[in-house]
Amino acid sequence: MRKGCIQIYTGDGKGKTTASVGLAVRAVSHNLKVCFISFHKNNKRWKNGEIDILKKLGVSFFSFASDTKLFNKKITLKKLSNECIKALNLISEIFQNSTYDVLILDEINFSLCNSIIQLKDFLAILKNKPKFMELIITGRNAPKELIKIADLVTEMKLIKHYYDAGINARPGIEF
Amino acid sequence: MRKGCIQIYTGDGKGKTTASVGLAVRAVSHNLKVCFISFHKNNKRWKNGEIDILKKLGVSFFSFASDTKLFNKKITLKKLSNECIKALNLISEIFQNSTYDVLILDEINFSLCNSIIQLKDFLAILKNKPKFMELIITGRNAPKELIKIADLVTEMKLIKHYYDAGINARPGIEF
Repeated sequence: MRKGCIQIYTGDGKGKTTASVGLAVRAVSHNLKVCFISFHKNNKRWKNGEIDILKKLGVSFFSFASDTKLFNKKITLKKLSNECIKALNLISEIFQNSTYDVLILDEINFSLCNSIIQLKDFLAILKNKPKFMELIITGRNAPKELIKIADLVTEMKLIKHYYDAGINARPGIEF
Repeated sequence: MRKGCIQIYTGDGKGKTTASVGLAVRAVSHNLKVCFISFHKNNKRWKNGEIDILKKLGVSFFSFASDTKLFNKKITLKKLSNECIKALNLISEIFQNSTYDVLILDEINFSLCNSIIQLKDFLAILKNKPKFMELIITGRNAPKELIKIADLVTEMKLIKHYYDAGINARPGIEF
């Protein structure tokens, strides 16, 4: 049986979600079964881009709490938390049924560091991760407790970003 | 006309090539024309994985100097340099003909920091990059002069890697 690791991509630089998309493509190219769960991503932009291609390649895709405060000031923490509880239930189910070889939790660190998901609840679920399953976690501010149990951690460090030079997010490049 | 930037992904952490694969997928999902030029990657492993999928998605793929010293102790610097000169000629041609919206030069930093490609030759070619074209440069040890002219730089910093714990590269995950 192959050994599954926990990989974390964190930091304030560009490349975390992009790397997880690349990982998904690499995994399906080797006939691994991949599930991509997206947290807090604006679906209007995101859904018509790379996710469409991932789906066509056979990647299962789920999205939770896409309507975050970043995009909608009126949304409550309670509503976001309820959405994320559904995500945690799905993750539990995936672990229990060993449905996938690779599970990507994109931007879940945002949920964790803003207490939309309680870290202790996530850590409790993680204990049931099947040994063969590769788990990819992305997002800024990865909790220390997660870094401690991870097998691989890359910090995407922002050295220079063109947003600072006034260049906005561009279709095909940022989303 | 959209503005094309120079993006650099450098550092010793995992995720540089993976992010460039993700960028390629995102770009083609928005109907951008993408060219992926790979330097110093062992084709035996690499070719049967994500590159096959990128090709099917319409990405043009070229590989140079795949047989590096990493894989073959007998190869000379002269032979590697000759291969890379062909790559530089191709890049020049792409700039001249404006053939692509996005050009990825994966691991070219390895060629530059090991003087397989002379930095001054590469910088001279870069002056002819069409303004609309997005250029993605990856690999450890990006030269300072390149970082200076780039619009975006992310350092993939190794915080923890499972290679250190004795886990070897796995198909579908590392290649």
